[in-house]
Amino acid sequence: MSLNIKPLADRVLVEPTEAETKTASGIIIPDNAKEKPQRGTVVAIGNGTKDEPLTVKVGDTVLYGKYGGTDLKLEGKDYLMMRESDILAII
Amino acid sequence: MSLNIKPLADRVLVEPTEAETKTASGIIIPDNAKEKPQRGTVVAIGNGTKDEPLTVKVGDTVLYGKYGGTDLKLEGKDYLMMRESDILAII
Amino acid sequence: MSLNIKPLADRVLVEPTEAETKTASGIIIPDNAKEKPQRGTVVAIGNGTKDEPLTVKVGDTVLYGKYGGTDLKLEGKDYLMMRESDILAII
Amino acid sequence: MSLNIKPLADRVLVEPTEAETKTASGIIIPDNAKEKPQRGTVVAIGNGTKDEPLTVKVGDTVLYGKYGGTDLKLEGKDYLMMRESDILAII
Amino acid sequence: MSLNIKPLADRVLVEPTEAETKTASGIIIPDNAKEKPQRGTVVAIGNGTKDEPLTVKVGDTVLYGKYGGTDLKLEGKDYLMMRESDILAII
Amino acid sequence: MSLNIKPLADRVLVEPTEAETKTASGIIIPDNAKEKPQRGTVVAIGNGTKDEPLTVKVGDTVLYGKYGGTDLKLEGKDYLMMRESDILAII
Amino acid sequence: MSLNIKPLADRVLVEPTEAETKTASGIIIPDNAKEKPQRGTVVAIGNGTKDEPLTVKVGDTVLYGKYGGTDLKLEGKDYLMMRESDILAII
Repeated sequence: MSLNIKPLADRVLVEPTEAETKTASGIIIPDNAKEKPQRGTVVAIGNGTKDEPLTVKVGDTVLYGKYGGTDLKLEGKDYLMMRESDILAII
Repeated sequence: MSLNIKPLADRVLVEPTEAETKTASGIIIPDNAKEKPQRGTVVAIGNGTKDEPLTVKVGDTVLYGKYGGTDLKLEGKDYLMMRESDILAII
Repeated sequence: MSLNIKPLADRVLVEPTEAETKTASGIIIPDNAKEKPQRGTVVAIGNGTKDEPLTVKVGDTVLYGKYGGTDLKLEGKDYLMMRESDILAII
Repeated sequence: MSLNIKPLADRVLVEPTEAETKTASGIIIPDNAKEKPQRGTVVAIGNGTKDEPLTVKVGDTVLYGKYGGTDLKLEGKDYLMMRESDILAII
Repeated sequence: MSLNIKPLADRVLVEPTEAETKTASGIIIPDNAKEKPQRGTVVAIGNGTKDEPLTVKVGDTVLYGKYGGTDLKLEGKDYLMMRESDILAII
Repeated sequence: MSLNIKPLADRVLVEPTEAETKTASGIIIPDNAKEKPQRGTVVAIGNGTKDEPLTVKVGDTVLYGKYGGTDLKLEGKDYLMMRESDILAII
Repeated sequence: MSLNIKPLADRVLVEPTEAETKTASGIIIPDNAKEKPQRGTVVAIGNGTKDEPLTVKVGDTVLYGKYGGTDLKLEGKDYLMMRESDILAII
């Protein structure tokens, strides 16, 4: 399903993955009950800034820091709006 | 109705939307009684800065962070004057 | 009356308007007894900086943040010397 | 009398004016006993920086913020060494 | 084994070396029980930024500061995701 | 006597002058027992930075702020290593 | 003996000199028991940054601030890894 939302500038909308899932590359994020999940799928991206175009694409699975982003609820699901600089890696 | 106000530089004037409204794309902003609404309509924009032109246009529906902006009352309605960098996305 | 004062760089001298006045565009600034007025008329401007020329002109009515500026008394009247970045909008 | 002192870069040497004096333009600085005078005469200036040449000239009467500058005693008189950015306006 | 992970921008994924190991050049990192190891092998690197390409390569043994980086668990092993600026030297 | 020392970048080595001395231009620095002397002679200078060449020369008598600089003892005398930006003026 | 270590960017590896030694130019660093030595020999340097090449060379004797640098033990000797900006002068 495509979401009707356009992040501004270097912002990226991420749908967090359930923490207990294991990726194809075998990455397991420790499930610390006091921490939010650190992995997700990019569902929308901004146009980047004049100085830095974005690297991630819609559909990428990404790892991100625990404290980045703003919680948003869309179509009944939880998303995180973050800056690309809060994303650590594409997996 | 057109407002006779011209924000300076990268500032944007936003008319907040009632928090319980649901958008065409189905976005629902959680109605936390202790928080101001996070969605609104752009009613006036500045000319941007030398380094960064503005991305949003008058009429855009936008999501913005909870703590940005200065409250203003115009024609008996509440508005928020914020910088474009306080806006998360166009929806 | 023209004032014999030349603000430096990006500074602007503003004569605050009485808070209860209503502008042509109908903007009413809430009269909070604990806050200074937020609207005024530009009476003198600097030459801007190398990077940013000034946008406001002498005679403009402007909205400005509550905590900007330095109080000055000229010809028995109160003025505020502020940077243009403290000005939110021209009304 | 000419002082044998050359401020560096964007620094300006100012001789504070007695606070109770009234200028030609009628500016009166409130005489708050707990504050240093805010008006003075420029007596020496630096060469400016590569990015910003100086605007004030020797002989200009200037208004400056209360907390800027370093006190210096020259020829038995008190002066203030400040950066031009601490100067609000030429009067 | 190649890991399926691509760090973003100036980030580098490092596999920490056991602290008591001695390198070919004889460098010994003091084994302070209260500190994490400071030496490791680069296992994945980002593309650098527009201003600074990366210097380290996959396979380099590096020394890094004690407090940099985010812990990640991949294939059951502990890794550190850090910025290249957290790396002190290649040994 | 020439000192065999080359300050780096925008650093300047200054030999502080006894606080009670009076200069040719009659500048007297108040002798506040709780403050270090504020006047001295430049004895060595760096090459400046790419953006800003140095203005002071070896032999200049300079005024400097009270809290700048690192104390150094050379040939039994006390010196101050400071950045040129800590120097207020050449006298 | 040559060390097999390459500092990154603007970092410099320094071997501290015993604090009581006197240099050819007669510089004596006060031996304050509560302070680390402030003089040393450069044993390895980085490639500098895009904006600033390094000034110091391997073999230079340098003075450096007391609080800069990270302690490293190599071949049983103590070294300090610091940024060139922590170095005050070449002596």
